[in-house]
Amino acid sequence: MNYEMIRYIVAWVLKIEGAMLSLPCIIGLIYQEKEGNSYWIWMVVCLVIGFLGSVKKPKNTEIYQKDGFVSVAISWCLMSLFGAIPFIMTREIPLAIDALFEIVSGLTTTGASILSNVEVLSHTNLFWRSFSHWIGGMGVLVFILMLLPVKNGSQINLMRAESPGPSVTKFVPRIRNTAILLYKIYMVITIVQIILLRLTGMQWFDSMCISFGTAGTGGFGILNNSCANYTPIQQWLITIFMILYGINFSFYYLILCNKKKTAFKMEEVRAYFLIIVVAIGIITWNIGSMYLSFSEAFRHASFQVGSIITTTGFSTTDFNLWPEFSKYILVLLMFIGACAGSTGGGIKVSRILILMKTIGKELQTIVHPRSIKKIRMDGHSIEDDMIYSIIMFFITYIVIFAISVLIISLNDFSLETNFTAVAATINNIGPGMDCVGPMSNYAAYGGVSKAVLIFDMLVGRLEIFPILILFCPFTWKKKG
Amino acid sequence: MNYEMIRYIVAWVLKIEGAMLSLPCIIGLIYQEKEGNSYWIWMVVCLVIGFLGSVKKPKNTEIYQKDGFVSVAISWCLMSLFGAIPFIMTREIPLAIDALFEIVSGLTTTGASILSNVEVLSHTNLFWRSFSHWIGGMGVLVFILMLLPVKNGSQINLMRAESPGPSVTKFVPRIRNTAILLYKIYMVITIVQIILLRLTGMQWFDSMCISFGTAGTGGFGILNNSCANYTPIQQWLITIFMILYGINFSFYYLILCNKKKTAFKMEEVRAYFLIIVVAIGIITWNIGSMYLSFSEAFRHASFQVGSIITTTGFSTTDFNLWPEFSKYILVLLMFIGACAGSTGGGIKVSRILILMKTIGKELQTIVHPRSIKKIRMDGHSIEDDMIYSIIMFFITYIVIFAISVLIISLNDFSLETNFTAVAATINNIGPGMDCVGPMSNYAAYGGVSKAVLIFDMLVGRLEIFPILILFCPFTWKKKG
Repeated sequence: MNYEMIRYIVAWVLKIEGAMLSLPCIIGLIYQEKEGNSYWIWMVVCLVIGFLGSVKKPKNTEIYQKDGFVSVAISWCLMSLFGAIPFIMTREIPLAIDALFEIVSGLTTTGASILSNVEVLSHTNLFWRSFSHWIGGMGVLVFILMLLPVKNGSQINLMRAESPGPSVTKFVPRIRNTAILLYKIYMVITIVQIILLRLTGMQWFDSMCISFGTAGTGGFGILNNSCANYTPIQQWLITIFMILYGINFSFYYLILCNKKKTAFKMEEVRAYFLIIVVAIGIITWNIGSMYLSFSEAFRHASFQVGSIITTTGFSTTDFNLWPEFSKYILVLLMFIGACAGSTGGGIKVSRILILMKTIGKELQTIVHPRSIKKIRMDGHSIEDDMIYSIIMFFITYIVIFAISVLIISLNDFSLETNFTAVAATINNIGPGMDCVGPMSNYAAYGGVSKAVLIFDMLVGRLEIFPILILFCPFTWKKKG
Repeated sequence: MNYEMIRYIVAWVLKIEGAMLSLPCIIGLIYQEKEGNSYWIWMVVCLVIGFLGSVKKPKNTEIYQKDGFVSVAISWCLMSLFGAIPFIMTREIPLAIDALFEIVSGLTTTGASILSNVEVLSHTNLFWRSFSHWIGGMGVLVFILMLLPVKNGSQINLMRAESPGPSVTKFVPRIRNTAILLYKIYMVITIVQIILLRLTGMQWFDSMCISFGTAGTGGFGILNNSCANYTPIQQWLITIFMILYGINFSFYYLILCNKKKTAFKMEEVRAYFLIIVVAIGIITWNIGSMYLSFSEAFRHASFQVGSIITTTGFSTTDFNLWPEFSKYILVLLMFIGACAGSTGGGIKVSRILILMKTIGKELQTIVHPRSIKKIRMDGHSIEDDMIYSIIMFFITYIVIFAISVLIISLNDFSLETNFTAVAATINNIGPGMDCVGPMSNYAAYGGVSKAVLIFDMLVGRLEIFPILILFCPFTWKKKG
């Protein structure tokens, strides 16, 4: 294992985090909040540790897959620990496990909260909470790839470990340029959303926080009832942007390159929109009688579907009160998740597509044992290795899911609560159903359960294996 | 497709079913119940149709995998339709969908009922209900293999389609002799249980019905509160026999061949007992305070664990009232299920073991990409084909599960009810939680939901693919 390189990467991550902390510092200044002071102090600490750790450049900058996984996992753990401290320092989330829960929820773009009243928080902390979504959405390691000297060819191992989806699309041959392009697209859409929200009459601060939450598909609100208080136009705007962020970013790249035809033929994007349209249609029909008008039911259905499939987790209504059928559709959407290569979580539409195709192939093989057919996606046949790794992802995911529910059921909440709590954290959504519904929070869970859910959020964001690898004894054995 | 052979097999199945119907006829005579008359009439009908259908022997007795799957699936569907008629004729279950639900639940050894009061049923119908467990437990096709002329080598395709588990163990080179041996073991254990239960003071009729329910890991009780009224000794006896039937029958064969060492080294059997011991231990601790004494808690924990992991579904207490942690352990056991090659359902311990081993292998491959390690079981390395088919089984299983819950959630019961209703039917258990708990039944579900659950029971018993194949258009296409 290239320990030197891992140390170097982790130090860089802390430097970046320090730099990011400057933004809440500025917010603290603007709103003249004493909470800003803690942020100033902590920013300096992060920067100092980061600089000290990255003074000595490693001789060997090669990163194998294992090193990539380990450095990404360690980076995210440390980033979470360091990101939680300001919450504790400002005493607005005094308990360590709660502060950690909140920041992991932020960075992993989950949006599950242990706070029952977010409106009492200072602007500084509110900003840091929401901004952590933006940082975590595209990923810090991807950010670092723009700056860091890594041996050519091994950067992909960092990107692969942090980016969601079964495969990493390199838009351009050089990873560094791909990373820059990704961040450019990400930033432009964010700014457009902030401006549009501002134009609808939303305050700058609110527009920014909501846009960060949308961009990272995070879901931390700054009001206690999430987005229920916003005007219909604002809600529609957020709906559209949520859905836009759930699209594979390759789509935007293709559009930028003027390859519109190829873009609109992407099977994953088509399936994603098909699922959204069908889900909105069915739910609008199912909840119709609960709202005054069709347009209201349609708006709530669209918002919630957009919010859940992209794993954002904003809400405009208490969908926990919806009929079981609609609720269960939302639960299914939680698992499906957004497109690969987007900022959303979940299993990802492309994985679901490929899994469905393998089932179809299996049935055909039973009927015609000698037929050898490759599974194809977007016209290309998919390698067996890739299929195998998708399948292993799915199985491991289910196993972690089942064990997580087991442990948190020690708190004796209902099966629905526990099941959707794990679903909402491992898929990085935020709100679940029943006691963890959109109008409730995760405060009632005990420390052990919170730890399990923190683990699930990280496992979900980093797509399981980087985090699991950390716990395998053979990862740390010398040689081999 | 060898349609002639399929017709021939299906006709034989009806003949066998006709023959089996003679037993409830005799019960009707003994108890002088008028319900017996319907059984006599229907027996004759089955036998006539069966004989007519099997007069002309097919020239080509070869059965390919596809033919095996299709004939097993059609046989089970017809067997269910024909088995349901006596319930309707006797007017004790007048609704067709309910009668079908009940017999499919019986034949698939599920034990889920739509009856809220079974104690009002005639002995004749009670016997047929319980006896259907015994028939379905080992399988009718396996029974037919003892009698039917099938081209050598292709019998395995019938057995494979009906027998539970990832692989079919041929004890002896000839399938016919394997089938005979299986039924001998099955019959001997059943008779021993009947006699032992009789010795504890249970009536002959009750002993037989309970033993059939245990043997097939079915779970239809003949009292409204299942096994709660029986004495502790009777409950312990049932517990032990349930667990015995959940063991891979290869184990018994090895014991019979005096290969005790090999038998006790079977990884699946060891894992099965380990899971049982751990589950009983944890649940006894968790429910301790709910019962008067340790021994009572221990007895209930053992009974319920034995009942659920073997997918029998008897109960001695309303485990729906247990703490969430214990309830969830039972839910997990529902999915794990019994050993392959037993009469139990579920995913099967061996599949779970192999899935766990593939996860371990995947983690090692990430750390050491060049290591090529085969997954081993009982000292033999497992072929990739087998692993792939287990994985496909698991994925398809999850997909069917998710869709089933979606459809039945239209009835607007709680997520817990719907989730465990599907879990309890697809795993052939019987009782679920909440509104389908051990002291409730499935009567409240609508027709569509009942149809879905019937489908799930068949899918669970025949391990998915035979039933799915029936619905694929390409199965019925000529040539190819």
